[in-house]
Formats: sequence, C-alpha cells, structure tokens
Amino acid sequence: MRVRNKPWAKDFIKDHSEYIVDNPEQWKGKWSNRFNKNQPIHVEIGTGKGQFIVEMAREHPEINFLGIEIQETVIAIALKKVVASELPNLQMVHTDGAGIDTFFDEHEIDTIYLNFSDPWPKKRHAKRRLTSPKFLDSYKKVLKKDAPIVFKTDNRGLFEYSIITFNNYGMYFDLLSLDLHNSEYIEDNIETEYEHKFSAKGPIYKVIAYFNKNKED
Amino acid sequence: MRVRNKPWAKDFIKDHSEYIVDNPEQWKGKWSNRFNKNQPIHVEIGTGKGQFIVEMAREHPEINFLGIEIQETVIAIALKKVVASELPNLQMVHTDGAGIDTFFDEHEIDTIYLNFSDPWPKKRHAKRRLTSPKFLDSYKKVLKKDAPIVFKTDNRGLFEYSIITFNNYGMYFDLLSLDLHNSEYIEDNIETEYEHKFSAKGPIYKVIAYFNKNKED
Repeated sequence: MRVRNKPWAKDFIKDHSEYIVDNPEQWKGKWSNRFNKNQPIHVEIGTGKGQFIVEMAREHPEINFLGIEIQETVIAIALKKVVASELPNLQMVHTDGAGIDTFFDEHEIDTIYLNFSDPWPKKRHAKRRLTSPKFLDSYKKVLKKDAPIVFKTDNRGLFEYSIITFNNYGMYFDLLSLDLHNSEYIEDNIETEYEHKFSAKGPIYKVIAYFNKNKED
Repeated sequence: MRVRNKPWAKDFIKDHSEYIVDNPEQWKGKWSNRFNKNQPIHVEIGTGKGQFIVEMAREHPEINFLGIEIQETVIAIALKKVVASELPNLQMVHTDGAGIDTFFDEHEIDTIYLNFSDPWPKKRHAKRRLTSPKFLDSYKKVLKKDAPIVFKTDNRGLFEYSIITFNNYGMYFDLLSLDLHNSEYIEDNIETEYEHKFSAKGPIYKVIAYFNKNKED
C-alpha cells in the first residue's frame, strides 16, 4: 500500500511512544514487558492501516498483539486507531519485517499474520515477497514450534507462489480456502481495510500453515 | 459423470478388444506389449468421454497412453474416438481406478492424470475421492520415482481438499494454477469435454505434484 506522506505522522508517532516502538531490537525477548499481562504474542507483519489488528486485539483480550509496519504515514494512521482503542494488549512496531529474527527471541511468537502483502509480481523481486523461503527461515526461528502462519491475499500469483513455497519448504497446511468470503470460514473472518474494499472483485485466498506437523491426518 | 446406459456399448467394447482391456490384472508389468513401441506410459484415471487422452496421444506419439474408466457407456463413447483415431499409442482400460496397484507393476507408470474427478462432496465420502491418501498410497507404488500426478478440476472444494492432502502426504508441488484458463499455462492445455463446457463458469484449478523432490527450489 502506498499513501502520500502526511506531515503530522512523525510527531504523532513521537507523542505516543506508549503504543509504538521504533527500536525493536531493544525489546528482543522482553516484548511481554510492553503489555499489562504476560500472554501469547501474535504478530502481524505489514499491518497497514491497522483495522485487522485493532479488531483482533479487541476480540482477543487473552492475546498480546504487535503490528509491524515500515511506512511512517501508514503506521501513523494505524496508530490513531490504536490510541483511540486504549487497548492494553496492542502495540505497534515501526520497522521492516525483514529483520524479524533480530528483534524476537527464538520461539517468542505464537502466530504470524500476513495480510495482503505486497505481491512483488516481477520474478526478479521474488525474494522480497514476505512468503519467500528466506522469510520463512526467520519466521521459523521466532515462532513457537506448534505455531502457525496465517496468510490472506487477493493476489492469485502471490498465493500460487506462496502455496508452492510453503509446501516445498516442508510446511503443513491446516485450513486452505480459495474463496474465503464464500466459505464456512467467513463467520470468524476479520477484514483488513483492503479486503473490505476488494473482496467483491474476486476471491480472497487464505491458508494456515505450520512448520511442524502437530495434527494427525 | 453420469450418462444413460446405451444398448450398443457392451457389443462395441467386445468388438474392439484391440483397443480396450477388461482384464487389466493380466497385463500387469506387461503393458508395453499392448503397444507398438516400448516407451513411457501415461495413465488417465477416469478418462470419461476420452477427448483429453485422444488429443494427448495424437500430440505425443513418443508416449503410450492408457485411459481408465469404470462406466461402460462412458468408456464406449471414448472408445469410439479411440477406434476412429487409429492411434498405435492409445489403449482403454475398462475398470475401477481403485485397484491400480493390482494391475500395474511398481514404478511402471510415468505420469498419472486426474481430470475433473468426482468431487464426492460429502465428508463421509472423502475416502472415495481419487486424491485421498489411500489412493495416493497406490499411485506412489505404481509411479516412477520422479513421476508426477497432474490434476485438474473446477471443483473448489475438491481442489482445496487435494492440496491439503498432497501437502500433508509430503508431496512436492511444481506447477500450481488457480485459474488455468487465464494463465500462461493455457497454451499447452488440452481440454476435456467437461472442461470445455464449464471453464467459462469459473476458474479451472491445476497442480502438478511429485512424491519425491526432484528439483531444487
């Protein structure tokens, strides 16, 4: 998602350091200290304008949520929602998802959400896709052994790529939906801003994938 | 596919035993003897009215093709096309796909095609789906080690089920398309009768899956 830079963004972020971190390495292994309660941590990489993670945090007070976003104006827009929500179980992280294993301890995270990630459609940019094998290496390090990646997208090419990549990496699929909004799983679905806008134009794809087989077939 | 029984079917099959087999166990390990040349064997399970396999055989004289179909009238319709084609590299097998490992030797086959298989949508019928784990057990036995299953369907539920099943079985994906007819792979695509009729109504899904990892990611 590209948005025009907003002049107020930088100051707004500075003024709300109780809800946002821009030095994530310093919190490695200590993320629970950012929250009231010591409870499982779920992370959304590329949290965009924040609708998904704010709703998730509201619905799941038993989980601590971290939203990672690199674009300053975008995370400032999300931060507005976070500040207004006054939720004790929601924090923003202003950084790049690429360094995730530099600012989380091994097995510190209970779930990673990837929602409508940049498809990087050109083949020479495949390594930048958040579902490429190098990213999977880092997710595997920071996720608990029985913890999933939950991935949604409307981009067919990115989903095809990701299913092949997850599968050939040796990950196990639990849920797979090729038309989430016309499936039984829609009941529990929490939408992103983008999803709300684009789900009428074509199918939303979703997969839940694990690095370890924790279920019997 | 259900079709009304045709009275001519039984006699037509009997009269063309040079193109059709109804005692497949007797050909186990000797399928090459049914053909002019000793060359790789590709098998379509559930060959329906035969358009796919006849066109494949015409385009690939370097491969021997076997079309398996259980319904008498349906295979008789396919057999009409086979007889008319006079192709030396195409044979029909009137039997059920379930017994495939009783009438092929280990590693006798170079490719299995599953095209628009019966989706058996009820969960209690999942074991009847041609992509269920029990079928995969038998395919693995009869396929060569580096040989693929090539699967096409327009049935979303069956494709979701099959991708999860292949994945949890430990298979590797090569090609995956979630909209074959709007993809780069359409050029080489050979349609079935059913596909020709239904591809305008929704996406055709396709995957090529291997039991062994024969490529580097």
